[in-house]
Amino acid sequence: MSKGLVVQKYGGSSVANVGRIQRVAQRVVGYSKIGYELVVVVSALGDTTDELVALAEKINPHPCEREMDMLLSTGEQISVALLAMAIQKLGSEAISFTGSQVGIITDSSHTRARIIKINVDKIKEELKKGRIVIVAGFQGVTLNQDITTLGRGGSDLTAVALAKELQANSCEIYTDVEGIYTTDPRIEPRARKIKKITYDEMLEMASLGAQVMQPRSIEVAKKFNVPLHVRSSFNTKKGTMIIKEVKKMEDVLVSGITLNRNEAKITLCGVPDKPGVAVKLFKDLATSGVSVDMIVQNVSHNTRSTDISFTIAKADLTKASKIAKMVAKKIGAGDVLLDEDIARVSIVGVGMKSHRGVAAKMFGILADNKINIEMISTSDISISCIIKKKGAEIAVKKLHADFGLNK
Amino acid sequence: MSKGLVVQKYGGSSVANVGRIQRVAQRVVGYSKIGYELVVVVSALGDTTDELVALAEKINPHPCEREMDMLLSTGEQISVALLAMAIQKLGSEAISFTGSQVGIITDSSHTRARIIKINVDKIKEELKKGRIVIVAGFQGVTLNQDITTLGRGGSDLTAVALAKELQANSCEIYTDVEGIYTTDPRIEPRARKIKKITYDEMLEMASLGAQVMQPRSIEVAKKFNVPLHVRSSFNTKKGTMIIKEVKKMEDVLVSGITLNRNEAKITLCGVPDKPGVAVKLFKDLATSGVSVDMIVQNVSHNTRSTDISFTIAKADLTKASKIAKMVAKKIGAGDVLLDEDIARVSIVGVGMKSHRGVAAKMFGILADNKINIEMISTSDISISCIIKKKGAEIAVKKLHADFGLNK
Repeated sequence: MSKGLVVQKYGGSSVANVGRIQRVAQRVVGYSKIGYELVVVVSALGDTTDELVALAEKINPHPCEREMDMLLSTGEQISVALLAMAIQKLGSEAISFTGSQVGIITDSSHTRARIIKINVDKIKEELKKGRIVIVAGFQGVTLNQDITTLGRGGSDLTAVALAKELQANSCEIYTDVEGIYTTDPRIEPRARKIKKITYDEMLEMASLGAQVMQPRSIEVAKKFNVPLHVRSSFNTKKGTMIIKEVKKMEDVLVSGITLNRNEAKITLCGVPDKPGVAVKLFKDLATSGVSVDMIVQNVSHNTRSTDISFTIAKADLTKASKIAKMVAKKIGAGDVLLDEDIARVSIVGVGMKSHRGVAAKMFGILADNKINIEMISTSDISISCIIKKKGAEIAVKKLHADFGLNK
Repeated sequence: MSKGLVVQKYGGSSVANVGRIQRVAQRVVGYSKIGYELVVVVSALGDTTDELVALAEKINPHPCEREMDMLLSTGEQISVALLAMAIQKLGSEAISFTGSQVGIITDSSHTRARIIKINVDKIKEELKKGRIVIVAGFQGVTLNQDITTLGRGGSDLTAVALAKELQANSCEIYTDVEGIYTTDPRIEPRARKIKKITYDEMLEMASLGAQVMQPRSIEVAKKFNVPLHVRSSFNTKKGTMIIKEVKKMEDVLVSGITLNRNEAKITLCGVPDKPGVAVKLFKDLATSGVSVDMIVQNVSHNTRSTDISFTIAKADLTKASKIAKMVAKKIGAGDVLLDEDIARVSIVGVGMKSHRGVAAKMFGILADNKINIEMISTSDISISCIIKKKGAEIAVKKLHADFGLNK
């Protein structure tokens, strides 16, 4: 009798070599033997995807996205075949499928396709035969039979979507860390593994720099209320549950501290203080595909001009500064200043919704440590400050301690 | 206006690295620019297939054939995507397809599937749009959507089958040699490239050891009268045409000399000379998947027993000798002798059909050179002799010279 259906997802580092594939097979067979039905989603082996991208770029620096998907999808196809073989070697029945074979239908936005529907009949049929079903993550197929991929981290999305469609009892995301931490343990060794966290907090942490899960897959999990269990593929410890609501959460003001050092700041000085000026700038940036994060416009003092600062991903700096300079010229603004020496430190927690003074406390902690705040942005469940890079790690440690997150 | 449709097939060595893929792209685009419609079939890059097999065997020494096909088919999928990108880089339009996408429907004999039908609508549609169509060789799909492969050299078969189905004007097989030679040029440097050869001769040469093309694909080309052009992907010289009939062929007694050093001989001594004894032996061998090549049963002399010798692929020697020993015991035969020190040298040519004395001439040439013949087998268009290995290369050279094949 089945103990229930579990969808497990193993990332690239969990299947990076023959030994690790065999270890995943053992874990999967172990679950199967104690009575679980299993659908296993696998990413490409180790750095395969990066290697294929590099190979493609040698041939064509701007490869066609359809062909890129054709190429990249082979990575997961190799993984699923090898994992099926490893499971069969252990005496259990297994069968592997590509995204196409299993009916993961997507739109035709190659390299970042969205899942339209999944036909799980084939999976159910194989589960009924007592087989472990292995599905290639990260990929799907259009109605026109073109192979698509779901974007970086897309295997998470495959797992969540399958768990939803199959009404799985749980969805386990296996990775090379033990779960979600209150902050990056490489910065603060006293960081604690979070036992339970809400979808919203996880989404906030993911978009603020925590790289454990792909934000889109968390959104989908939230939308369909699929409970996620993020845990390590190298041991059997319980990891972090990502769920709808966490009881007793009123006691926890702040769940985690994130740090992002991959942003840059651009400032337009002496911008004429009249309507429509900012519109021009941010419209041009959006058109060029630059996504702007924080925006601060200073109040104008004695002159009729103001300064506008905004942050962007560091990778977009060249593109964005070019646009900023063109716009500055056009609107008669002054200098354009670029600053890569910034870091964004954020506190995240649903608890702060119902507590006043959290922002004030954060600013106080930074001030006490002589850390100057350059920009501030807030949401329902997070507060972010842009500070100088050199203060970043101290800020994380102090916030981690003073909000009561140390072990 | 189209000059006609050409199917081109490039083997693994022709696309072994980035530079070679770019060279193939240039050739393809060149053909396209002068007005040909092109369907290009590609094998996996260099030794990819062997590497994937080795990887699979590390995980499972007896991998499930369905999963093996899942794994191996990624090799060609990588090639087609990269070639499409390389062609697009040169400014031409191209689109790649897997065997599955293009509708190469096969039976479900994994690792050696047979093509049942091909739906070429999709290819025709893309050709109409002015695109170069790149198809993954070696692979197909069952009606149940399982990925299959067509066996070693299966990309040739893909090309021939597509050429037939598309009624292509020609089918070009690109390889790392310049065509079919009168014998192996590594043995006899005076070997000549054959301009034209019949399907039957080519089949005979392929099955006797010439490794340029997969025999099954030649059979299919013969059946549907698809003219083949075997040529080099490293230059633009004309290669060898494989066609139905070669004019003036009556002048050419022998078209080529082949040598196969990968066989072994097994002899059962003292086999009781009564009906049904040989049946038992060859039935058991067939059941175990050992395919027997030549068989010689000596006439019995003064005793009531005889000797039976047969040849097999060297790879099957262990399996076959085990069976031979079991059968020998059962039927009361004597010793079982194994001999790996043999070579098969053959002459091939449709011309010998209408000429007597070719066999006698061959035996004479070998005798003149003191080469002892251990076994003989003949067909309509070939004569093979088993000799000791050490005489093999001399035999090839002498036959090549005396049948008038030297440059």
